[in-house]
Amino acid sequence: MSIAVAEPTGGTKSEVQKILAQAKAEGRTALTAPEAKTLCELYGIPIPQEGLAASADQAAEMAQDMGFPVVLKIVSPQILHKTEAGGVLVGLKSADEVRSGFQTIMDNARRYDPKAELLGVQVQQMLKGGQEVIVGAVTDPSFGKLVAFGLGGILVEVLKDITCRLAPVSRDEALSMMYVIQVAEVLKGVRGADPVDRNALADLIVNVSRLVDEVPEIVELDLNPVFARADGATAADVRVVLDFEPAPPRYRPSEEEILAKMNRIMQPDAVAVIGASAEDGKIGNSVMKNLINGGYKGQIYPIHPKADEILGIKAYRSVKDVPGDIDVAVFAIPAKFVAQALTEVGEKKIPGAVLIPSGFAETGNVEGQKEIVEIARRYDVRLMGPNIYGFYYTPKNLCATFCTPFDVKGRAALSSQSGGIGMAIIGFSRSTKMGVSAIVGLGNKSDIDEDDLLTFFEHDDNTQVVAMHLEDLKDGRAFAEAAKRVSKKKPVVVLKAGRTSLGARAASSHTGALAGNDKIYDDVLRQSGVIRARSLQDLLQFARGIPVLPTPKGENVVIITGAGGSGVLLSDACVDNGLHLMSMPADLDAAFRKFIPPFGAAGNPVDITGGEPPTTYRNTIKLGLEDDRIHALILGYWHTIITPPMVFAKVVTEVVEEMRAKGIDKPIVASLAGDVQVEEASEYLYDHGIVAYPYTTEMPVAVLGAKYRWARAAGLL
Amino acid sequence: MSIAVAEPTGGTKSEVQKILAQAKAEGRTALTAPEAKTLCELYGIPIPQEGLAASADQAAEMAQDMGFPVVLKIVSPQILHKTEAGGVLVGLKSADEVRSGFQTIMDNARRYDPKAELLGVQVQQMLKGGQEVIVGAVTDPSFGKLVAFGLGGILVEVLKDITCRLAPVSRDEALSMMYVIQVAEVLKGVRGADPVDRNALADLIVNVSRLVDEVPEIVELDLNPVFARADGATAADVRVVLDFEPAPPRYRPSEEEILAKMNRIMQPDAVAVIGASAEDGKIGNSVMKNLINGGYKGQIYPIHPKADEILGIKAYRSVKDVPGDIDVAVFAIPAKFVAQALTEVGEKKIPGAVLIPSGFAETGNVEGQKEIVEIARRYDVRLMGPNIYGFYYTPKNLCATFCTPFDVKGRAALSSQSGGIGMAIIGFSRSTKMGVSAIVGLGNKSDIDEDDLLTFFEHDDNTQVVAMHLEDLKDGRAFAEAAKRVSKKKPVVVLKAGRTSLGARAASSHTGALAGNDKIYDDVLRQSGVIRARSLQDLLQFARGIPVLPTPKGENVVIITGAGGSGVLLSDACVDNGLHLMSMPADLDAAFRKFIPPFGAAGNPVDITGGEPPTTYRNTIKLGLEDDRIHALILGYWHTIITPPMVFAKVVTEVVEEMRAKGIDKPIVASLAGDVQVEEASEYLYDHGIVAYPYTTEMPVAVLGAKYRWARAAGLL
Repeated sequence: MSIAVAEPTGGTKSEVQKILAQAKAEGRTALTAPEAKTLCELYGIPIPQEGLAASADQAAEMAQDMGFPVVLKIVSPQILHKTEAGGVLVGLKSADEVRSGFQTIMDNARRYDPKAELLGVQVQQMLKGGQEVIVGAVTDPSFGKLVAFGLGGILVEVLKDITCRLAPVSRDEALSMMYVIQVAEVLKGVRGADPVDRNALADLIVNVSRLVDEVPEIVELDLNPVFARADGATAADVRVVLDFEPAPPRYRPSEEEILAKMNRIMQPDAVAVIGASAEDGKIGNSVMKNLINGGYKGQIYPIHPKADEILGIKAYRSVKDVPGDIDVAVFAIPAKFVAQALTEVGEKKIPGAVLIPSGFAETGNVEGQKEIVEIARRYDVRLMGPNIYGFYYTPKNLCATFCTPFDVKGRAALSSQSGGIGMAIIGFSRSTKMGVSAIVGLGNKSDIDEDDLLTFFEHDDNTQVVAMHLEDLKDGRAFAEAAKRVSKKKPVVVLKAGRTSLGARAASSHTGALAGNDKIYDDVLRQSGVIRARSLQDLLQFARGIPVLPTPKGENVVIITGAGGSGVLLSDACVDNGLHLMSMPADLDAAFRKFIPPFGAAGNPVDITGGEPPTTYRNTIKLGLEDDRIHALILGYWHTIITPPMVFAKVVTEVVEEMRAKGIDKPIVASLAGDVQVEEASEYLYDHGIVAYPYTTEMPVAVLGAKYRWARAAGLL
Repeated sequence: MSIAVAEPTGGTKSEVQKILAQAKAEGRTALTAPEAKTLCELYGIPIPQEGLAASADQAAEMAQDMGFPVVLKIVSPQILHKTEAGGVLVGLKSADEVRSGFQTIMDNARRYDPKAELLGVQVQQMLKGGQEVIVGAVTDPSFGKLVAFGLGGILVEVLKDITCRLAPVSRDEALSMMYVIQVAEVLKGVRGADPVDRNALADLIVNVSRLVDEVPEIVELDLNPVFARADGATAADVRVVLDFEPAPPRYRPSEEEILAKMNRIMQPDAVAVIGASAEDGKIGNSVMKNLINGGYKGQIYPIHPKADEILGIKAYRSVKDVPGDIDVAVFAIPAKFVAQALTEVGEKKIPGAVLIPSGFAETGNVEGQKEIVEIARRYDVRLMGPNIYGFYYTPKNLCATFCTPFDVKGRAALSSQSGGIGMAIIGFSRSTKMGVSAIVGLGNKSDIDEDDLLTFFEHDDNTQVVAMHLEDLKDGRAFAEAAKRVSKKKPVVVLKAGRTSLGARAASSHTGALAGNDKIYDDVLRQSGVIRARSLQDLLQFARGIPVLPTPKGENVVIITGAGGSGVLLSDACVDNGLHLMSMPADLDAAFRKFIPPFGAAGNPVDITGGEPPTTYRNTIKLGLEDDRIHALILGYWHTIITPPMVFAKVVTEVVEEMRAKGIDKPIVASLAGDVQVEEASEYLYDHGIVAYPYTTEMPVAVLGAKYRWARAAGLL
């Protein structure tokens, strides 16, 4: 019954164009069933045998040829929801039934929409058996074409159990879709049912994704249901919605262009401050002070309409008066003066402008923002902001911001769409001494977006992890492409805010209605190798912890704990975070048992029991590090008089450093249960590369889980 | 088709007993279908018309009487899985079909199990239409009889989408089960289907729960499927499993008995320390010092085989030598001496023993533990532990523990099964200055259990919230009953560890296999009004925050934020925590707008924008407190020069205290985004009754959500 999966032939494009032209000429935004079927055939999407009957007799004859039972469906460009119109009859078993069915459908359709043009009745071979699934495609305003997959049926609709990927998808990606839906087990064949043919289904999904990708006019497509059987997959019904208004092209500079400009903006040798001021309390004064006091070693050019010098530095009337090159201009002037100054920045060929001022789109001044973007495009200037706090780049001692200076150098680059979240990043970083390479405010994102930042951080040797807070993506596809590339090299963590709002995306198709806005983000972020943070604390703690932990070399995690109670909670957290607790080999079990009291429990967790001296921690941790079969350790500490917190912290650090000296470096996290001294001990451990927390069993495991998620997505495991 | 729901008649009990006696006499652990049907009829559980046919002709005749189509099923005590045996035929439409069907089934059954006794074929009216659901009952080793409800079908099985309640259930509880399953929407009737008759379904569930409650021998029961229609619900198939070995009765003192003893143990006027020691480093020395230095004002009686005084206090050879009454004896002697000393405690009529020593069941010494429990029962002594750190009761300045003293008095009572978690409680409490009434270690729980503690805390005016870490419940039913009662008065928070392990509970029934161990805990805890904490941090933060917040008077929550970005994340957190963001009435919207810049956003969140002075926070918060339609506030603060953190904290505190003086007291939580000074500001706010956190939008909302969950479960909203 199924049609072999075929490569589209050379003539495909022209045939597709012919169908589209016909629809366009007739002012239709939907394809007729026969047209849709032709598209499927051209793209190797298996469909049942069928034909269009203009009369009852013709329908009966066709049915006779293809074999009973058959399905009858009305064909009318105006009737999209055929069932509602009484335009579908299923299970017709004889020529007589088909004949009378034809008449019933035509009558129903006429009553449903007297103005509808009725082209006839489609006679279709009725598919039996197998599992009903849905394959579809939607067009997201930010991500573009997406292909979706889910099981069919009411329950799945209630659960909204569907998964999306950017189109086109690879075969592997298509296969992966069959494992991530909630009810994936059904595809394996439960209760005696046959497993479905995943390969056939994957081919079908791949071909749908190519179809929608290659034909931009197709904005929605539903194959519902697709019958997935043990020996193939066939789409029983096809619905295609068109849009002949192409989306306006997006500004998409090449990776090289992005990098060339971002390098100069983020690592400038010369900074102009437009609106520099000597007056305390002014933003232009704060920016100047932060540049100077932050220890920036490049040129600083204060720009001021009248002053000759500001804070001891020679000032200029305009950037155009500055003799040398300028890499970036920081704007600290009211919104109304930005356009003029930006024009001068363009004329001076400065590659980037950091627009601190508010008073643009966020206050309703959409036109004002449009104007500055136009100026920027004209002169090829990249804009950061407007409505931002600016940015920090610590390797250059650069505080191009009006906020307080920040100087804890390190490997985490963070960005935020919101200024408030930016301040939380700074406060958290300072409080936890999290080493930071950059903190960037993106604000209104009139131009520079997360994908520009990703491209810069990708090539920035000072950055080892990128953590981003975002509320939306102006160009989700550009972000996904950049993230997919970057996350192969460096972990990318994203806190997507507004995840519980369904947004205002139009969703007239079935697939579209099932795939909520946040679901799409979730699927695409995962497809792009991004680690999604579920909370602000997760974003911050992941940024802090991920660069501290070495990359694990395998999936085997072992818990070593002094507190049995912590062991249980740590195990819970492992399951929550998708970590694999190694089942302990007998020889290793015996080896651990040598170090612990007879009533302690080996296995995993290794429960060394509470009253043990530092040597027990030392011996068991050393064994865990030395044995090649173990890839990561989770430590549970219990405060006792025999092994006080700082003694524990030091003994752990010692043995870890000893092993590191021998070239053994595994990720280790720790949960410390005890009196307040465990806070100091946790800090000490963190400072020595062991991600440790007091009073929580969940956070250390979540950080380890994030590292693992990244390593898996990057193909390192 | 459905049978009216009837009260069991007076003769029910004897008829049930007759059926059970028959089964027992025949050595069966399952009822035959006709027996099971009789039980259903006795308990008003609607079943289809049916009869047992011994011959093909009799089957045909019966079918003729009840009307076609019919279902045929083999009846054999040995064949439980009829479909597997080829013993079921459905949709037989004529007498002839029934006749030949009878033969087919008998033949199949014979082949399937040649030794099976075939009693004949059940002829059953075939139910059509409606939604297939499952109603069942299982017996849990800890919770006893549970009734379960879920939708039928493979998908639901894959999802394990089923919900359990302690049997018997009330009608309201039965109705609630139809709203909490994942696919609850299906019962409303989706895609044109009729909504099911929830009342009929609830009656059926209530009756099943009464049946299993009143007949202890029924250990499992499956009604699968039940056809739930718009006009009733009928069980199409009934399976009943019996167990004639009654579970051993549990030690269950009355509430009064528990309270009488727990009051003396927790609030003693005289404490004996068995194993008191003058020697530093000994546990018996630490306990003595903690009692003395903690400021305990009651009598302290050191018990020591030789000493005449310890730390300046007169010592005795045995508790029996002490002249006055003793309320509790704290044991600080090795395990092997406990039995003898406990006998003396019993003879002295001391009501409670706090058994710090380890070396009992946790090290494999199960017999030793059994021995001390027997001694305790003999003398009516309640045991806390063994293998514990002891306990604190701050209103009495009582530190009956070898851990460090603790004296921050307050309203949270905490307990832990594990010593490590107990230490984390102490450290966290000290670090955050969380006021505590009691911290109790339960350890091996040989006797005193969470339900004993709950009963004490219920009546303890010094306790306003109870937070418990537990790994198992020895008597889940006693806990659930106590929790249900207590949670009406005081919030009960539980961190159930080991939630991801499925445990070793036998589950031969369908319902049993679907309801995993953690799912049962989840359902029963909810049914008991308990707030379940998902992490150790949640347990600790809920214990700290819940008593600080006043109980909300309604569901309307409003977010007031200086940072738009925080507003979005706070909204996400509201959805995550089941909080209702009030849709802002027009007049209130206008009132808020008066205080905020024109480009700020009213609605909810109220976005006052970042650059605002303290008065804007003040005015909007005041409005939020004064307006009766708003029941709780969530504040988002953004660190700026115009309103620095401590200025914000003070202005919020001022306006809140002003309102409190007027009798307006609403729950307020705050998320502070900013530089490190927000930490001090958060502490200041917390100290003044506003639950505030730096660098997290999720935690303040989670605490508010926990307070709301409690208020709803306690019927206060």
